[in-house]
Amino acid sequence: MVRWEPGARERLQAAALDLFATRGFEQTTTAEIAQAVGLTERTFFRHFSDKREVLFFGQEMFVQAFLDGVDAAPMDASPLEVVGSALQSAASFFPDERRSYSRTRQVVIDANPALQERELHKLAGLATSVADALRRRGIGEPGATLAAESGVTVFGIAFAQWISDDEQRSLSAIAAEVLRELQKLTAVIP
Amino acid sequence: MVRWEPGARERLQAAALDLFATRGFEQTTTAEIAQAVGLTERTFFRHFSDKREVLFFGQEMFVQAFLDGVDAAPMDASPLEVVGSALQSAASFFPDERRSYSRTRQVVIDANPALQERELHKLAGLATSVADALRRRGIGEPGATLAAESGVTVFGIAFAQWISDDEQRSLSAIAAEVLRELQKLTAVIP
Repeated sequence: MVRWEPGARERLQAAALDLFATRGFEQTTTAEIAQAVGLTERTFFRHFSDKREVLFFGQEMFVQAFLDGVDAAPMDASPLEVVGSALQSAASFFPDERRSYSRTRQVVIDANPALQERELHKLAGLATSVADALRRRGIGEPGATLAAESGVTVFGIAFAQWISDDEQRSLSAIAAEVLRELQKLTAVIP
Repeated sequence: MVRWEPGARERLQAAALDLFATRGFEQTTTAEIAQAVGLTERTFFRHFSDKREVLFFGQEMFVQAFLDGVDAAPMDASPLEVVGSALQSAASFFPDERRSYSRTRQVVIDANPALQERELHKLAGLATSVADALRRRGIGEPGATLAAESGVTVFGIAFAQWISDDEQRSLSAIAAEVLRELQKLTAVIP
């Protein structure tokens, strides 16, 4: 009989991140993660397919947050306004309570080339999904891909700033500012 | 005594690409590549560290072409003008004679997730190098990273178009057009 462990996923995730950050990702085993919160390795595998999955769990919801923001934009919005809406929706996925977790996660990712490649892959997949959504709204190419890739770039820069030391502003505020910087950068000077 | 084989690298590269495209990347051995052009496996390893390297050889020169374009821009150029100069320099690295090779290479990369991740990693490294070069010109953040990432995005979209079926225009012409599209996309509508 399987006993339901309330909050097991969250506890496993917190313990895993702590172990990855202190001992190193490669040096941590799934058995150790489970043991750290008094659970069995079998319970770990009911929640995650492997230890890497702990760091990438929730990816579909993250992509969905972007897509919800695309859908929320009025149909007559410009491609960049749609991207702005997607960025605000995605930013709400990262409330300030999550900043500390995100900081530690980034330290773990930065220390491991294979995790970095997986992260790049995740962001490339996000850009593809957003470009698809923009094309479904009738935005042509190369506009849809340019807007989607620019949105992911803005998100990446804003996110790096959000988790930097001493940063206090919300991800939402930073993303809006980086998007304005992109507009300034590409403005045609008459 | 090592016998010098004129054009050995180019012949190995052409034979490797042909084998990767017809048999598959995983199914091709370095011995087979060497044999296809009447060379020894030892000669192969004098030119490439492994078979994956055949597909990524010349990467430093590719990054350098971007950086040369950054350096060639006048000091009072806007960040986006600098990126435009970098794109034109990079485009000259891909003359039309190379289009056929680039098309086949892309088919090989698209068929193999590990090669796709390496390609993403290459483009991420390119953006980092270009951002460094922009900061050395005194461009601040987030402008330097935004401009560099936007340049790599424009290059990626232009390159995909350049190797698409029936495309006749030069990479240089396509890159200039995609950059103009980016400017249109981000233009603030008064």
